[in-house]
Amino acid sequence: MALIVQKYGGTSVGSPERIERVAEKVLETTRQGHQVVVVVSAMSGETDRLLDLAHRIDPQAGGRELDVLLSTGEQVTIALLAMALHRRGCPAVSYTGAQVHILTDSAHNKARIREIDGARVRRDLEAGRVVVVAGFQGVDEHGNITTLGRGGSDTTAVALAAALGADECQIYTDVDGVYTTDPRIEPRARRLDRITFEEMLEMASLGSKVLQIRAVEFAGKYDVPLRVLSSFEEGPGTLITYEADQMEQALISGIAFNRDEAQLTVTGVPDQPGVAARILGPISDANIEVDMIVQNVAADRQTTDFTFTVHRNDYERALEILRRTAEELGARSVEGDPAIVKVSLVGVGMRSHAGIAAEMFRALAEEGINIRMISTSEIKISVVVDEKYLELAVRTLHQAFGLDAEPGEGVA
Amino acid sequence: MALIVQKYGGTSVGSPERIERVAEKVLETTRQGHQVVVVVSAMSGETDRLLDLAHRIDPQAGGRELDVLLSTGEQVTIALLAMALHRRGCPAVSYTGAQVHILTDSAHNKARIREIDGARVRRDLEAGRVVVVAGFQGVDEHGNITTLGRGGSDTTAVALAAALGADECQIYTDVDGVYTTDPRIEPRARRLDRITFEEMLEMASLGSKVLQIRAVEFAGKYDVPLRVLSSFEEGPGTLITYEADQMEQALISGIAFNRDEAQLTVTGVPDQPGVAARILGPISDANIEVDMIVQNVAADRQTTDFTFTVHRNDYERALEILRRTAEELGARSVEGDPAIVKVSLVGVGMRSHAGIAAEMFRALAEEGINIRMISTSEIKISVVVDEKYLELAVRTLHQAFGLDAEPGEGVA
Repeated sequence: MALIVQKYGGTSVGSPERIERVAEKVLETTRQGHQVVVVVSAMSGETDRLLDLAHRIDPQAGGRELDVLLSTGEQVTIALLAMALHRRGCPAVSYTGAQVHILTDSAHNKARIREIDGARVRRDLEAGRVVVVAGFQGVDEHGNITTLGRGGSDTTAVALAAALGADECQIYTDVDGVYTTDPRIEPRARRLDRITFEEMLEMASLGSKVLQIRAVEFAGKYDVPLRVLSSFEEGPGTLITYEADQMEQALISGIAFNRDEAQLTVTGVPDQPGVAARILGPISDANIEVDMIVQNVAADRQTTDFTFTVHRNDYERALEILRRTAEELGARSVEGDPAIVKVSLVGVGMRSHAGIAAEMFRALAEEGINIRMISTSEIKISVVVDEKYLELAVRTLHQAFGLDAEPGEGVA
Repeated sequence: MALIVQKYGGTSVGSPERIERVAEKVLETTRQGHQVVVVVSAMSGETDRLLDLAHRIDPQAGGRELDVLLSTGEQVTIALLAMALHRRGCPAVSYTGAQVHILTDSAHNKARIREIDGARVRRDLEAGRVVVVAGFQGVDEHGNITTLGRGGSDTTAVALAAALGADECQIYTDVDGVYTTDPRIEPRARRLDRITFEEMLEMASLGSKVLQIRAVEFAGKYDVPLRVLSSFEEGPGTLITYEADQMEQALISGIAFNRDEAQLTVTGVPDQPGVAARILGPISDANIEVDMIVQNVAADRQTTDFTFTVHRNDYERALEILRRTAEELGARSVEGDPAIVKVSLVGVGMRSHAGIAAEMFRALAEEGINIRMISTSEIKISVVVDEKYLELAVRTLHQAFGLDAEPGEGVA
């Protein structure tokens, strides 16, 4: 008998009929002899409906009262799921975040979980009940309702799994696992049976958004085995594990990419200490997030070229700010391009293998793809290329690193 | 400076725009220097929407999980009202029933309030905040969410007013007070400035449904001055008071009536001890509620005639049961009429005045209205008449007891 925490997102509980399907899936797990804790999100569309009500009263609505409002979304789902389980003869009990003491800080709308008291849940599990918990919400030390921010239900599930010492935390979603790359770009993309936490973090932040990054971090920190599965199809999904478990780690796990980038470059900046801060300070003051940053010593060794990328929506604003800064610094020129994309190889295997980067650059060169920027970390290599090369670059790398599905292998 | 508890029902908070109007009304009261606690219901239609979701999953949905579901309705309203107050620069804070410890028993869907801990609310009031509380809901000693049953928000308001020692509990509704009778029947009906608790109870149970009976009882028990006002129109409403306060109590406060009655009579029943129980036992076992009961000694002094009224929906069932009982008892006959109505004079003044009944019967007789049944209590006299006489009887009595509005007086 194992203790399983299952999390079902908004689409999976989007109607009474879908909630009944979730009840069937939960029952199936209990019939296998497992104890089950279920974490659910608000029914899809419900959070937007509530936000619309709030915005009709105050377009700037936020803070404590927004949490009181939004937390009703999951409360509706837990009650309906518990009813569906009862109807099937399954003892079940629902709890709000406050009722199971999901203690958070007081940062309304984006609270962080501090502590979960698992005692009440454990008593119910021992009494043979399925426990249904509202995701996304908690309570601060003064008894105020808090929410973890959108997608926080994943975090609730992982935190509960950690507090209860669960054997597995299963995240049910509308995809059946993590893929080597986006199957809409590369039809030969394969579902991965396993992926490490670190790779998952890189994949998520690079655009393969299956799980909330915070939930993945949390799972890694507390050693919670995490599995991504489909609510709608049968299948083992993808298990997210620790590197240590992986005896035969593939060199490369996947190809991530990000379409929404724009590149800005300032050339001929006098190379003095603090120049990076002077360039990026005003950008960050304008609440523009910077992704990749590359700095090169210029040929004259007196000045430097400085390039960075931002979200495409922020491109015009960033360009304007950068022009002002460049003038102040006496830089030579400011250039930019909003039509670029980032493509990344991700894999923990590259730590112990030399030559991956060279192989990547050669594969791209053979297809005539020009690389504009390169940035590397321990387990990923990212390149910035012209937007028009996105699909070609992804497919080229997918094949070059042996990620293509075997002929006859099931592909989503 | 007074402490006022205001309660706004579902129609008064039925849309974001109406919630803003409620916020204005609350602000007006604070500007007069008063402390305000606001109790709100779910937005109109919301409870039905939630019930529909539940019934799509389980047509018999009830118990603990239904309370978890339905309590979200008021939680949405408290958040929206607090936002509307913030937007107007008014410090406000919202609380669910659980958050202000509205402790109830564990009778889900129809819980009764045991205790309210007013400390948290008092602290907020002293800090200059308006406190917005979800009506209709509470929490049992195990932390489970409970609801008081439909209309329970009135009870929440009165219970809070009692716990806080409020100076007045104002119930805002879609009528502007309690009337001498239904203005749809008698256009000259007048709004009463005052009515006693006992009269209010008689009026409410007789069909002038403005307030929940339980709330009125509660207010009477804890000496909470209660006022009924309109959310949509200005005006002082009707104050519900104790008889002791009333120096110049009118003889008669109002004419109540009930259209939905049906009459059943069994004649020639052997007059033995226990016969009433033998007749009404099977009716009550069938969950049929009996309203008026009249028993007369028959002319032969050996047998008795026994008449009672039930809700019209229960007439056919009750008739069938009564026929079986009559046979067992060896009664002479069973008769019935589903086309009758009850009309009642209500007034604490009749306690100290003789002759009211006679005057009532004479007024009806003058209009040719035949009385079929009579039943009296300390502060009311009810008669059963043919359905076709309802309007005539109400108008006749309204004029006979001086309740008509003065010419030129404002009438709703």
